[in-house]
Amino acid sequence: MFDQISIIGCGLIGSSIFKGLKKVGSIKKIITYDNDKSVNEIIKKDKLSDEIFKSAGEAVKNSDLIIIATPISSFENVLNSIKDNLKTGSILTDTCSVKTGVSKIFEKMNLKNSICIPGHPVAGIENSGPKAGFADLFKNRWTILTPSKNTDEKTLQKVSNFWESLGSTIKIMSDEDHDKILTFTSHLPHVVAYNIVKTSMSHDKEVKDDIIKYSAGGLRDFTRIAASDPIMWRDIFIDNSALIIQAIDKFIKNLDEFKKAISEKDSKKLIEIFEKSKDFRKSIIKAGQDTDKPDFGRK
Amino acid sequence: MFDQISIIGCGLIGSSIFKGLKKVGSIKKIITYDNDKSVNEIIKKDKLSDEIFKSAGEAVKNSDLIIIATPISSFENVLNSIKDNLKTGSILTDTCSVKTGVSKIFEKMNLKNSICIPGHPVAGIENSGPKAGFADLFKNRWTILTPSKNTDEKTLQKVSNFWESLGSTIKIMSDEDHDKILTFTSHLPHVVAYNIVKTSMSHDKEVKDDIIKYSAGGLRDFTRIAASDPIMWRDIFIDNSALIIQAIDKFIKNLDEFKKAISEKDSKKLIEIFEKSKDFRKSIIKAGQDTDKPDFGRK
Repeated sequence: MFDQISIIGCGLIGSSIFKGLKKVGSIKKIITYDNDKSVNEIIKKDKLSDEIFKSAGEAVKNSDLIIIATPISSFENVLNSIKDNLKTGSILTDTCSVKTGVSKIFEKMNLKNSICIPGHPVAGIENSGPKAGFADLFKNRWTILTPSKNTDEKTLQKVSNFWESLGSTIKIMSDEDHDKILTFTSHLPHVVAYNIVKTSMSHDKEVKDDIIKYSAGGLRDFTRIAASDPIMWRDIFIDNSALIIQAIDKFIKNLDEFKKAISEKDSKKLIEIFEKSKDFRKSIIKAGQDTDKPDFGRK
Repeated sequence: MFDQISIIGCGLIGSSIFKGLKKVGSIKKIITYDNDKSVNEIIKKDKLSDEIFKSAGEAVKNSDLIIIATPISSFENVLNSIKDNLKTGSILTDTCSVKTGVSKIFEKMNLKNSICIPGHPVAGIENSGPKAGFADLFKNRWTILTPSKNTDEKTLQKVSNFWESLGSTIKIMSDEDHDKILTFTSHLPHVVAYNIVKTSMSHDKEVKDDIIKYSAGGLRDFTRIAASDPIMWRDIFIDNSALIIQAIDKFIKNLDEFKKAISEKDSKKLIEIFEKSKDFRKSIIKAGQDTDKPDFGRK
């Protein structure tokens, strides 16, 4: 596959890539770089790198594949530090949850000797950092690649094979389609989770303590989603703000209708909404995207 | 404890009470009634009753404790059918997720020979029906009792002991406090879950299929909550509509602020919201209301 790869950014995703690749044993050398000292200490201690470099520029020399697994706000900095050190014919990819923004940055950099293919493994848990990573994070999950029209088939195949070796199934789509879909499957759910937690927190201490105490009735599940990495989510919300704002507006429109239905005691309308939700859930289980194990396996 | 109890309504909660009591072995005879033929067939086949009755009125005769585990819209009917058959000194309780409405119905019925204590085991999973029930549903969960001011201590203790025998911890509070807290811990999260699913569904088939396919990024977790029993939730939303509407308004206000923050790329404000969410999540884990096992144990 690749003789040498570099992972820039060693959080949940970066460290899971390292662990997954080591499990498969397909790459001769895996180099890592992270700008956070405490992260590097964990990487060193837990042996999550074949060689740790102190600069991104040094870390990419001689690598065939470079994976940028940092929040999108660090992208331009990372690319500026590595662009003069890239091996001719090397491939760059990333793992961000927004893709049009990444395409634009890659285009703007206009790297002559390397081929850039934006990517997004649709995998993640609420915990972040290298300690949270695990080898099977990408197993049975989708990885979406959003190549530009000029990308040659052979390079695309190489990147596809790479993610497949970690257990992912590949889907190729445009960056616009990616961002449109992810707005609904991931970004809006996170917006809502953060705001329901915020709404619940804005109470006096006594009521707030009671809300925490009885949170098992639904709220705790939202707090779980809302516990994801703050920097990553700030970047996603800002980068994809136009589509997310549209989605929030749609959502508020639905909420207003729902308010009307409950204040008018419109039983028929409510039941209709609930039954459709159940059908949608069934489709998700049928599509293999969730199990019907009760209560998230907490039972 | 009690020699004979009757369970009216044998869905998830009713059947879990039966299974829990049988596991403990504390009650001599457990009678059940459900107005749904198909439910009764399951109850019979799976031996989830010591005696199945065909009318609620017949089912309560000679019972010391009657548990109404039906949706709240059936309450008045159930009470009307049983009121003339209640044993003197019998205790009535329920399992609804709204309590002021239940108190009002109990008050209105003004039963002379029985004592009514509204109750709510804060336990539940997204699956419904008798097949979903299990003995440990109430274990390590709160059961909230909302007795009226006239309730004698001895009767309250009996009902407390009953739920404690199923593994619950008891909390006594007013019905108003109960509904206020549950609005935020359970009702608002469900409103939001239903509406995020609705928002995601309102797309062309092709986009909708893609949304289902990539739902693991957050959306699937909302569909799980939104798969709960439709009749039960219709009743909760209608019965507690005033408080829920207030909560929705608060929530929309927060959403509007959030929209503003992302359109203005207000990094500081966003990070502040996210960090506070993480703290709130930590409080929930500290309060023993969730574990920090990643990804709901799906990993």
